[in-house]
Amino acid sequence: MQKIINDPVYGFIQIKDKEILDLISHPWVQRLRRIKQMGIAHYVYPGAVHTRFHHSLGATHLMRTAIDNLHLKGIAISPEEALGVQQAILLHDVGHGPFSHALEHTIVSGISHEDISRILMQRINADTGGSLETAIAIFEQSYSKRFLHQLVSSQLDMDRMDYLNRDSFYTGVSEGVIGYDRILQMLTVVDDHLSVEAKGIHSVEKFIIARRMMYWQVYLHKTVLGVEQLIVNILSRAKELALKGAELFASPAFRFFLYEQVHKADFENDEAIIRKFCTLDDSDISCSVKVWADHPDKVLSLLCNMILNRKLYKVMMSSDRLDGQFEEMEKTYAYPAGIGEEEKHYFLFRGSTTNKTYNQYDDLITIKMKDGSLKNITEVDNALINPYVTLPVKKYYIIRAVL
Amino acid sequence: MQKIINDPVYGFIQIKDKEILDLISHPWVQRLRRIKQMGIAHYVYPGAVHTRFHHSLGATHLMRTAIDNLHLKGIAISPEEALGVQQAILLHDVGHGPFSHALEHTIVSGISHEDISRILMQRINADTGGSLETAIAIFEQSYSKRFLHQLVSSQLDMDRMDYLNRDSFYTGVSEGVIGYDRILQMLTVVDDHLSVEAKGIHSVEKFIIARRMMYWQVYLHKTVLGVEQLIVNILSRAKELALKGAELFASPAFRFFLYEQVHKADFENDEAIIRKFCTLDDSDISCSVKVWADHPDKVLSLLCNMILNRKLYKVMMSSDRLDGQFEEMEKTYAYPAGIGEEEKHYFLFRGSTTNKTYNQYDDLITIKMKDGSLKNITEVDNALINPYVTLPVKKYYIIRAVL
Amino acid sequence: MQKIINDPVYGFIQIKDKEILDLISHPWVQRLRRIKQMGIAHYVYPGAVHTRFHHSLGATHLMRTAIDNLHLKGIAISPEEALGVQQAILLHDVGHGPFSHALEHTIVSGISHEDISRILMQRINADTGGSLETAIAIFEQSYSKRFLHQLVSSQLDMDRMDYLNRDSFYTGVSEGVIGYDRILQMLTVVDDHLSVEAKGIHSVEKFIIARRMMYWQVYLHKTVLGVEQLIVNILSRAKELALKGAELFASPAFRFFLYEQVHKADFENDEAIIRKFCTLDDSDISCSVKVWADHPDKVLSLLCNMILNRKLYKVMMSSDRLDGQFEEMEKTYAYPAGIGEEEKHYFLFRGSTTNKTYNQYDDLITIKMKDGSLKNITEVDNALINPYVTLPVKKYYIIRAVL
Amino acid sequence: MQKIINDPVYGFIQIKDKEILDLISHPWVQRLRRIKQMGIAHYVYPGAVHTRFHHSLGATHLMRTAIDNLHLKGIAISPEEALGVQQAILLHDVGHGPFSHALEHTIVSGISHEDISRILMQRINADTGGSLETAIAIFEQSYSKRFLHQLVSSQLDMDRMDYLNRDSFYTGVSEGVIGYDRILQMLTVVDDHLSVEAKGIHSVEKFIIARRMMYWQVYLHKTVLGVEQLIVNILSRAKELALKGAELFASPAFRFFLYEQVHKADFENDEAIIRKFCTLDDSDISCSVKVWADHPDKVLSLLCNMILNRKLYKVMMSSDRLDGQFEEMEKTYAYPAGIGEEEKHYFLFRGSTTNKTYNQYDDLITIKMKDGSLKNITEVDNALINPYVTLPVKKYYIIRAVL
Repeated sequence: MQKIINDPVYGFIQIKDKEILDLISHPWVQRLRRIKQMGIAHYVYPGAVHTRFHHSLGATHLMRTAIDNLHLKGIAISPEEALGVQQAILLHDVGHGPFSHALEHTIVSGISHEDISRILMQRINADTGGSLETAIAIFEQSYSKRFLHQLVSSQLDMDRMDYLNRDSFYTGVSEGVIGYDRILQMLTVVDDHLSVEAKGIHSVEKFIIARRMMYWQVYLHKTVLGVEQLIVNILSRAKELALKGAELFASPAFRFFLYEQVHKADFENDEAIIRKFCTLDDSDISCSVKVWADHPDKVLSLLCNMILNRKLYKVMMSSDRLDGQFEEMEKTYAYPAGIGEEEKHYFLFRGSTTNKTYNQYDDLITIKMKDGSLKNITEVDNALINPYVTLPVKKYYIIRAVL
Repeated sequence: MQKIINDPVYGFIQIKDKEILDLISHPWVQRLRRIKQMGIAHYVYPGAVHTRFHHSLGATHLMRTAIDNLHLKGIAISPEEALGVQQAILLHDVGHGPFSHALEHTIVSGISHEDISRILMQRINADTGGSLETAIAIFEQSYSKRFLHQLVSSQLDMDRMDYLNRDSFYTGVSEGVIGYDRILQMLTVVDDHLSVEAKGIHSVEKFIIARRMMYWQVYLHKTVLGVEQLIVNILSRAKELALKGAELFASPAFRFFLYEQVHKADFENDEAIIRKFCTLDDSDISCSVKVWADHPDKVLSLLCNMILNRKLYKVMMSSDRLDGQFEEMEKTYAYPAGIGEEEKHYFLFRGSTTNKTYNQYDDLITIKMKDGSLKNITEVDNALINPYVTLPVKKYYIIRAVL
Repeated sequence: MQKIINDPVYGFIQIKDKEILDLISHPWVQRLRRIKQMGIAHYVYPGAVHTRFHHSLGATHLMRTAIDNLHLKGIAISPEEALGVQQAILLHDVGHGPFSHALEHTIVSGISHEDISRILMQRINADTGGSLETAIAIFEQSYSKRFLHQLVSSQLDMDRMDYLNRDSFYTGVSEGVIGYDRILQMLTVVDDHLSVEAKGIHSVEKFIIARRMMYWQVYLHKTVLGVEQLIVNILSRAKELALKGAELFASPAFRFFLYEQVHKADFENDEAIIRKFCTLDDSDISCSVKVWADHPDKVLSLLCNMILNRKLYKVMMSSDRLDGQFEEMEKTYAYPAGIGEEEKHYFLFRGSTTNKTYNQYDDLITIKMKDGSLKNITEVDNALINPYVTLPVKKYYIIRAVL
Repeated sequence: MQKIINDPVYGFIQIKDKEILDLISHPWVQRLRRIKQMGIAHYVYPGAVHTRFHHSLGATHLMRTAIDNLHLKGIAISPEEALGVQQAILLHDVGHGPFSHALEHTIVSGISHEDISRILMQRINADTGGSLETAIAIFEQSYSKRFLHQLVSSQLDMDRMDYLNRDSFYTGVSEGVIGYDRILQMLTVVDDHLSVEAKGIHSVEKFIIARRMMYWQVYLHKTVLGVEQLIVNILSRAKELALKGAELFASPAFRFFLYEQVHKADFENDEAIIRKFCTLDDSDISCSVKVWADHPDKVLSLLCNMILNRKLYKVMMSSDRLDGQFEEMEKTYAYPAGIGEEEKHYFLFRGSTTNKTYNQYDDLITIKMKDGSLKNITEVDNALINPYVTLPVKKYYIIRAVL
């Protein structure tokens, strides 16, 4: 029953459980093949076109390895738990839509991808006679062994570990490379808390630093931020036009979400809506953007042409508020001809973003010292990860189109 | 003016020439961002989602390195030639459509992607006051220095070198890894013929072997072959239905090619057709396939559901003709209910495919021996690459849907 | 009890068994830290300074992985067998002396390193109350399950797999890189014969090709051959002088083997000789060579200065007998002043060497086809590894000092 | 004239200048082939057996690349300067003896390896009619362009860059991997000061972090510290015995340094001493240690047996002074029988070590901001490298033999 899947990141991914293979075959998991993990960031890092499907497989592979290692160290994990925690990580992202962050703020608002993941898991569970009971309990943090949830979602979970590995690999940003195999070797559980043996402390330090570096070099790279805002603005404008009754080319499912106002309760109660959502992927958006490039609405067509021809927003970023600069810029900025007052914000706007590499208040990474005691990693003698490094960082930005 | 682009395959790609940067910004080159290099092969190798855009940048990078190395060895290459040969390789694939091989046999027949590349190059050349004169001459093999064309298209060209590197990297099939940096170091020119110094012979051997291995493990992998045939059949059926007047969801450009019969001459004469073709990308096909999964035509909807839910064709492959097995299978195969006689071939069919790793008759790879003489690589003393290895290999297959 | 050892080739080597850890601590195994795996080849490949100790650990690591994989597939392997086969591979090279091939032809003649390995294993076994009974039986091919011996010594054993990986890695010759993890995944046993599943055939092909490439690029590289002959000639001359009673600087143990004629029977019967042999390592030879550079014997001092200052032999190599060239060269070669007739062969000489990448007659690599049958890899349909490739290759050489 | 040398770290090292090739052939540079870069650390990291020779080649390769990049950016560097700075880096370590740090504290005291490098450079310069004038001026910081010296010796010099790369590679400690190619791309010179463009800041941060991690994981690893102290103690004891007139096996050159007290002035004035020093390498020490294992002096033989059989010192390390623990341990420690009072310190002793990852007071790494201004890296907005990280760290240790 075993299946071996090629993965350039880990060499091979072995799937040994029939239950996991069946779940991978589910159309809702297969759908993740058509959704890029990093959305539109490939406009800056052209190699970063990997999919949420591959990330889900990778995280499941790391989970299997982690579970095997913990088992060898004598941590009690039953076969049901081992299966459940793998199912949970395999499905943790199943509720993502295309260009997820953009979509959540525009077309499908009021419900997060985590909510949708949970709804989808419950529906699969119902359809399969309860095959995901343990997985759902672990995912929702209601399962008795807390460390299983931490493997799925915490500062040191298999999700982060895979996405750092994978995003580094595909972007080619070597600063994000982590020694994941050593961390997995050093995982342990103390008092139902996921922890790392003292010998692994440097690998954990590097993991935290690598994550921070990926934030500044990739996830919050100013051009990446700009291109994501471009998608947000395209979808916002399209929704605005749709609600006014304008005609917009779209696939049937995408059309539904463009023209209807759907709420969280609808997702939970109306199976048809879930099924429609689960046909959406990157191609619906990409295909419409190309057609909209010729739309009579000037704002929409300008924005769509920007993305098609890679005439991206210019982004100014700073740790200081940019109030003065923004006011100055508003005075001199040459808006496209024929743009109304209430449409100006599509071409020149500002905002802020915050990054917390390592949240020092909850769910801390703990180190199991040689004497068996636990220490928060920031308290370890001579730690590289000190309170200074873990402070959240806020950045302000001004974005403008250069037409 | 220099730009550095991250590339996980080579670390970095440096672009130094303004002319090359301008060409990369052209919408027709940008379009390649939305076309996967390996089409639908990611159904078997989930990492293989890299784009034709990245391949074109990579090949241009190798070309720049090759030219620099040859220049250091005293081979005369003028700045115009250095630019032209880079433009030629950057644009060599610009005429590819989405799922190119499938498209060429169905929707856009009678014209090859090479033809379209040539037409697009000529049009850009006309639009820019002749900026591509040298590039086109090199591409079309009419330029006086033959070795420049060989760098673009021959047994050892920068196209192959990049796609082997890149496809190996993204599939995770290490058998395709080549020592490209050593080959580039060892390139030389003798009597206007691209050649390799004797010290590089083992790297060239490995290159040929790697290419052969990629054919058997990836390009002609039977499941990859099956999924490509599935796309071919979906597009064939859609075209068949369109010509009968059935209604099919499609973006405007895709609709045009579905409902019209376009010939090579139309491409050459009608600029509007070229412009329509240049808006096509993977998303047009993917988006339609999802909608067609609910199409009233049973053949079309069955095939589309197969690909969406990864219920792929089963493929039997052999060096022997499979006549007996096919007749046997025809007798027992359970066709879907309601399928007409002339539709049966969508569910059970056969064919053959041929691979030539190394064509021993034309454009041979030559080695510059220590005494200065040239030898075909198959004639070098104790060569690994012998006539036996270079024989073309024909394989027969039977493909069937398992519904 | 588990120990994790860093290994740049595999990331980590995990040792789980106390018995293996104890064996690694044995002074005779520790001695391998001081013997370079590739002898003097680092004069050509400066990175190739890895030790026989690391190779032995690496091969043991691969063995553990292979055993675990076979076990998962249901191949019966008892804990004693699993331990024994690891002990056998860990000790398979324990009988190597410094610059082994040179030493065996000069100072310590008449006994091979395999013989010495066997003698050392028997002595450790006697000292430890029979801890190596199973290991010795497997090593000597007297154990009932033949495939266990094949894992230690055959065309596809863990020895070759590690040394190809390791020698490639440290020389930087990428042509030797193999997909060892995939081969290990695909190993199986049929009728007590080690075999490879059909899906692994391309990885095995690559393994055979890689081995062949390492032979031509590294192991039989003409400068490597020359530097090895230089060591042979230095040791021959030193032995010649010692037997004539000349005084030569040497450590006590090295002095013993220089001045005494030791035979195979002595090794087997005289424990003191074994103990002396087991204190020899690279430093004894290197240290003497430096002192001998000032020795009054002109031949010895010239040869030692050649190696110290890297004035290496010039080597001419060919598939043809070089009789004519050699006679010609003898006439014109300028021997150093004062060199006697019977000493000329230290400065100009000839010989031949044979490489068999893959021996087609015994211990063939077998492939388990999908129908369960076994086929020799050269008989598999469309095999890359054909009789032509597996023919032994003989090369003739002429070597001369350039003083 | 160009030579290509395989290097697993960089793929290839190209040497283009005849002057550099000649210098590599010098016996004093060739001698570095026989001195391991990391001394005895391979007892903990068995892969770390690379040589100072390879490191010197690697650093020269990085220097060539750095110089080429700076040249492309319009920084004025004459051919003589380009050659001189490469010669300087090639020879920067030529004065290292075997197990350098141990040797400097015992056998050859009162003179540092930098001093000896300088003396050797001057002597080669004198022998070759002044071929190293520029190199020596750069090395000694008397050359007019200060940034050339910074490339040889500063916080961001080619020495550190190569040894981090190389030590990471050979130990297998991935935490030390740096993006050296990106740093080299981003190097620039502002006001005669070596600097890094703002776009390279994250790579520099990673470089500093990687260096810190290598210190804690490798260079100051407690077992590595212990094994280095073991060598120090063996050499101290041998010197002690030699000065008392005891007989000790040693090669002639090593014997000279064991039995004579040599001072810095002797090195500078007596060419014979320099020539003797330049025949020393790892094999002299290793060979003697094996013979000394049977020496009648109990301290010496015990220590030598410890290293031969890898019965290493146990090391306790802490940020706190360990006064209490040491006094406690002195009371209970079981010294070997027959050890005199004044010999006890060979078996139980203590000390401290200090690491400064990044010295914040002199020779700071400066970043060239986008507005052209220079900033110290610790002052850059939101820097990872803050004063907290750059504080020197002192560690106390207790070391004891476990016999």
